[in-house]
Amino acid sequence: MTETLHDLASRGFASDNYSGVHPEIMAAIAAANGGHQIAYGEDAYTARLQEVFAKHFGAGVHAFPVFNGTGANVTGLQSMLPRWGAVICTSTAHIHSDENGAPERIGGIKLLTVDTEDGKLTPALIDKEAWGWGDEHRAQPLVVSITQTTELGTVYTVDEVAAIADHAHGLGMKLHMDGARIANAAAALGVPLRAFTRDAGVDVLSFGGTKNGMMFGESVVVLNPEASDGLIYLRKLNMQLASKMRFASAQFIALLDGDLYLRNASQANAMAARLRDALENGIAEGSIRGLTFSQATQSNAVFARLPDGVADRLRENFRFYDWDASKNEVRWMCSYDTTKADIDAFVAALKRELAA
Amino acid sequence: MTETLHDLASRGFASDNYSGVHPEIMAAIAAANGGHQIAYGEDAYTARLQEVFAKHFGAGVHAFPVFNGTGANVTGLQSMLPRWGAVICTSTAHIHSDENGAPERIGGIKLLTVDTEDGKLTPALIDKEAWGWGDEHRAQPLVVSITQTTELGTVYTVDEVAAIADHAHGLGMKLHMDGARIANAAAALGVPLRAFTRDAGVDVLSFGGTKNGMMFGESVVVLNPEASDGLIYLRKLNMQLASKMRFASAQFIALLDGDLYLRNASQANAMAARLRDALENGIAEGSIRGLTFSQATQSNAVFARLPDGVADRLRENFRFYDWDASKNEVRWMCSYDTTKADIDAFVAALKRELAA
Amino acid sequence: MTETLHDLASRGFASDNYSGVHPEIMAAIAAANGGHQIAYGEDAYTARLQEVFAKHFGAGVHAFPVFNGTGANVTGLQSMLPRWGAVICTSTAHIHSDENGAPERIGGIKLLTVDTEDGKLTPALIDKEAWGWGDEHRAQPLVVSITQTTELGTVYTVDEVAAIADHAHGLGMKLHMDGARIANAAAALGVPLRAFTRDAGVDVLSFGGTKNGMMFGESVVVLNPEASDGLIYLRKLNMQLASKMRFASAQFIALLDGDLYLRNASQANAMAARLRDALENGIAEGSIRGLTFSQATQSNAVFARLPDGVADRLRENFRFYDWDASKNEVRWMCSYDTTKADIDAFVAALKRELAA
Amino acid sequence: MTETLHDLASRGFASDNYSGVHPEIMAAIAAANGGHQIAYGEDAYTARLQEVFAKHFGAGVHAFPVFNGTGANVTGLQSMLPRWGAVICTSTAHIHSDENGAPERIGGIKLLTVDTEDGKLTPALIDKEAWGWGDEHRAQPLVVSITQTTELGTVYTVDEVAAIADHAHGLGMKLHMDGARIANAAAALGVPLRAFTRDAGVDVLSFGGTKNGMMFGESVVVLNPEASDGLIYLRKLNMQLASKMRFASAQFIALLDGDLYLRNASQANAMAARLRDALENGIAEGSIRGLTFSQATQSNAVFARLPDGVADRLRENFRFYDWDASKNEVRWMCSYDTTKADIDAFVAALKRELAA
Repeated sequence: MTETLHDLASRGFASDNYSGVHPEIMAAIAAANGGHQIAYGEDAYTARLQEVFAKHFGAGVHAFPVFNGTGANVTGLQSMLPRWGAVICTSTAHIHSDENGAPERIGGIKLLTVDTEDGKLTPALIDKEAWGWGDEHRAQPLVVSITQTTELGTVYTVDEVAAIADHAHGLGMKLHMDGARIANAAAALGVPLRAFTRDAGVDVLSFGGTKNGMMFGESVVVLNPEASDGLIYLRKLNMQLASKMRFASAQFIALLDGDLYLRNASQANAMAARLRDALENGIAEGSIRGLTFSQATQSNAVFARLPDGVADRLRENFRFYDWDASKNEVRWMCSYDTTKADIDAFVAALKRELAA
Repeated sequence: MTETLHDLASRGFASDNYSGVHPEIMAAIAAANGGHQIAYGEDAYTARLQEVFAKHFGAGVHAFPVFNGTGANVTGLQSMLPRWGAVICTSTAHIHSDENGAPERIGGIKLLTVDTEDGKLTPALIDKEAWGWGDEHRAQPLVVSITQTTELGTVYTVDEVAAIADHAHGLGMKLHMDGARIANAAAALGVPLRAFTRDAGVDVLSFGGTKNGMMFGESVVVLNPEASDGLIYLRKLNMQLASKMRFASAQFIALLDGDLYLRNASQANAMAARLRDALENGIAEGSIRGLTFSQATQSNAVFARLPDGVADRLRENFRFYDWDASKNEVRWMCSYDTTKADIDAFVAALKRELAA
Repeated sequence: MTETLHDLASRGFASDNYSGVHPEIMAAIAAANGGHQIAYGEDAYTARLQEVFAKHFGAGVHAFPVFNGTGANVTGLQSMLPRWGAVICTSTAHIHSDENGAPERIGGIKLLTVDTEDGKLTPALIDKEAWGWGDEHRAQPLVVSITQTTELGTVYTVDEVAAIADHAHGLGMKLHMDGARIANAAAALGVPLRAFTRDAGVDVLSFGGTKNGMMFGESVVVLNPEASDGLIYLRKLNMQLASKMRFASAQFIALLDGDLYLRNASQANAMAARLRDALENGIAEGSIRGLTFSQATQSNAVFARLPDGVADRLRENFRFYDWDASKNEVRWMCSYDTTKADIDAFVAALKRELAA
Repeated sequence: MTETLHDLASRGFASDNYSGVHPEIMAAIAAANGGHQIAYGEDAYTARLQEVFAKHFGAGVHAFPVFNGTGANVTGLQSMLPRWGAVICTSTAHIHSDENGAPERIGGIKLLTVDTEDGKLTPALIDKEAWGWGDEHRAQPLVVSITQTTELGTVYTVDEVAAIADHAHGLGMKLHMDGARIANAAAALGVPLRAFTRDAGVDVLSFGGTKNGMMFGESVVVLNPEASDGLIYLRKLNMQLASKMRFASAQFIALLDGDLYLRNASQANAMAARLRDALENGIAEGSIRGLTFSQATQSNAVFARLPDGVADRLRENFRFYDWDASKNEVRWMCSYDTTKADIDAFVAALKRELAA
């Protein structure tokens, strides 16, 4: 039996995927264990998963569990595109910046990137790359991909998603959403999942589970069946087909059948808000100097700039990442298991560093 | 919380990945849960995993956990090959027959296949495709890939692997082993894992965990560091990098730190032998007629041919697959959780069908 | 100005692409030169080319000139297939044996190969790999590709092509023809080009020009528009779009507007027949011993087996290739510019070597 | 025989590849015709080609003729990169903007683009994307690619290329040059070809022929053999291997053995300068109003902005392209066959449109 090899009390602000598995999800895995189940997705849990997703997104959607977010994004996008397709996305998009070229190398997909201030596309920004249809020299822009919540912790409103969807559809393009942190968006917006996805015009969705308390697993969710083709084949050939799929599906059922996804996301968001509020108060009252915020805190991340040397000293006790080292910009990410005490201890440390 | 949605007593002979997760592995997962751990493999469990693999394979090997067998095969093979490389394998090889072209489509790898009687390559069979180096029109044969145990349930002996390795190396090729069922081979051969892998000349290994009682996870194991390049990048771009890798690694530790891998494999092999023996006895004593064996039973699979209609009638109560329907050939696969009672009930059903 | 650097009288039997450019084609190139023409295919010659192809294949076909045969095959096949598609072909097919994996690596296409005696598929041979639709683990067989004339110099009859087309279509598959030597087939069969292509059920054709007297250039010809999609984009992204396309198109016009394609092919075929006849006569009359034929001579190639050492001695004066060195099998290929004197000199040399 | 189907007197300013083939190159093709030559590059012309390139670039370089510029770029870049490599280039680079994703889709290469004012990279601009080595999530920046002359008609000086090469090499990256118009750069700079390529630190070069008067053909030229691997295989599998290669090589010999490349490029450059000068004079003297220049005219292109509607009216008689329609920006490209009379007629038309 494996013993525990790490400090169970350790927590930091590096990433929401540094956290472990929520106990309710562990229980669901245990309940799905034992006996034989058909492999590769013909099991009872994956069948039930379809009902659970339909409860959130309505009839006619279909969910394809895969291993991870890159797998979900590439497989979903491929299913939306011919071999000559291109995807318009932000230059901070995970598919562009953090997937070692998987969309291009594995998916054969050209990315057309647009710079943004806050990680969010708009119809006007999309238009910078939405042109050239019929010109064989240009990779054809046929999909817009947005990330919700964005990589910068911001959140598209329902209206913003709908405006993008209308614009994309009007130009003959489809809309993909990378929802690695979709639950955080639902918690932030206070609306049902379908309000800012299917009802707003999203065609295909990468539904993230790992950052929200699962062990592994994302789902490609086809919200508009006419926008996607061949997913069962693409999932397999993209090496994203789990043999013992029941365990991925059981986790998603645990997350989504009740409100666990929302509880987890709300806790993460609340802790980011607590951190932001404490720091803003410190700045207002003069107990914190030299810290500025580089993005709004709308979900579970706080982006800030610090005086020289502060980040490294803080990291002696709290793990987190530089976002843009050239600007002393850091990212503090809260997780479903982040506690008030975690925040308060970190704020205290920040105050010691940044006291007037 | 997810309830159990299936019959926990159900077991069949369809595939060893129909089984669930061994309790000791579940315990290891639970022990690794809680607190934060660095994502993407810099955690304590993945560090410990290296020691566990070194215990079996010797110093200097390096294991890269991935999600599944196709991912392990394609990523490992890519790391061994330039863009113009080809792989010699059997026409029954999983990489050729069961991966929807992932080696070609994702890996950019040409497969040069050879027909065999028993799923096993030999130096002479390899020579059918081992030619044409330097000819730019021919995909360059630079790797030989063998499967241990084979897709037909047969097992390469230590000497057979060594002969292939010597032959491949002598021709400037490397040797890859798809070890989706490597534990079953170790149990069948009764020798340490390294005896028929590293010591026999295998360069890169796909080490299978899922079919041996894990929830998910395989490892690319580099036995000869000079034969492989760029695995950290390839794993990521092939969408096989788990964020919460500690849970894959903890499973492997549970499997390999003690002898769980061997206990599980031995049980599966023993149950296949029990099935084979019972059927052979039935044939000898005349209580079974019309059944013939199409492959030797050397690990956890029994391949047989049945009279018309028998397979379908049996499948009303026992799940298993046709191997080659045109020949009435079926495959019965035993798992780590197959019991003597399972075998005896199946033999009884067979006898009812095949009684004289 | 470049001087001539080689012996203009040199000719051999190595390959029909060792020959140069037919004078009428050179004249057509010269006639297309001068002034400006829109690049990338919107020129007057490429427009006229469509009419020329329509004259042979009927209204509604569309020709896409590309640079070479591999480019035509891969681009054409991609246009017929989704990302999960596979192609059934012979194990001697050029796409399998002579393209360094381009269909797999560039096209993302899985090839399912079948061994043949004479390089020709049949419905029964196709059935060896025509199965598994809907099974996500199997690359989906959606296209059959045949080569006309085959790589072994044999020729499919009109009925044979039609039987394959009917069979493929009946199974929901499309039919592709690699016509690198299609003119030789037309000459051999004595029927119009469309008789054994479009009218027989071929959906997409690689129409070869280089081996028939052109400088460079092949065309993907879409005979059934419903069977192909996106060729303008695929040609560009496959790096097969010529900027000064008028020169490729002008060559094809010269070849096909009159009967040059047929004159060239007939000459090549006739010279192969002359060689075959002379050798058979020699064998019959006893002046040649030890030579056997390994394939029928139906177009411009003669395949034969020779006693040890003979091939190498002949090659001191006549260039040609081994086909299968392990069997002393050689290939003698005639070209549009092969002369009776060439054949007679070669026969004389053979007789000196093989005299009783 | 093909008749001439177009107006031999037609010339415009759309692209230098609208032009035909220079008579000296036609003569070289004719001289290489006749007799048999070994296919696929083992001919006398391709052997001689190596000497011709060595005359310009020094001993030890190797040229690989391919069909077109996209083929040269992708094949050359692939030969410089592992599967996880990325290329830093401008956002106006041909490889990014005009190749329908071929580098990504065919080459498996990630492009990291940087915006520029004038189409030219600098060390500082390179640094925007030159980071993240060793981070498996990031496509590894291992090559810098510059275009000479740039897509905006500007020209890197010798020192600018050298500074980029030093910077790239200092960071462990290689330098690729897309020389689709390299002869125009040589003419503009007035230095030998090797001065701003090999001697300045370029590792691999795409040497353009088509835009400089050839019918077809570019060459990957390996200036630093340690920076490139596997080109013979990559050229074939990228479908860029011409069977009758002698005709590509003969064209290059005609271009480069004497000074034809320079004569052609100088004429094109001079005509662009004549156009620029005439327009600047018109602006200075007040006979032209409303026209501004958007780029320096350093080679054979003039970039300008025009009042609304002017471009379309001009195009009734002179063919040219919008560069950025949203800004009324147009590109006028001169070719080796552009004449003084062509320029003067165009200036006159412009003056009629833009008279005060």
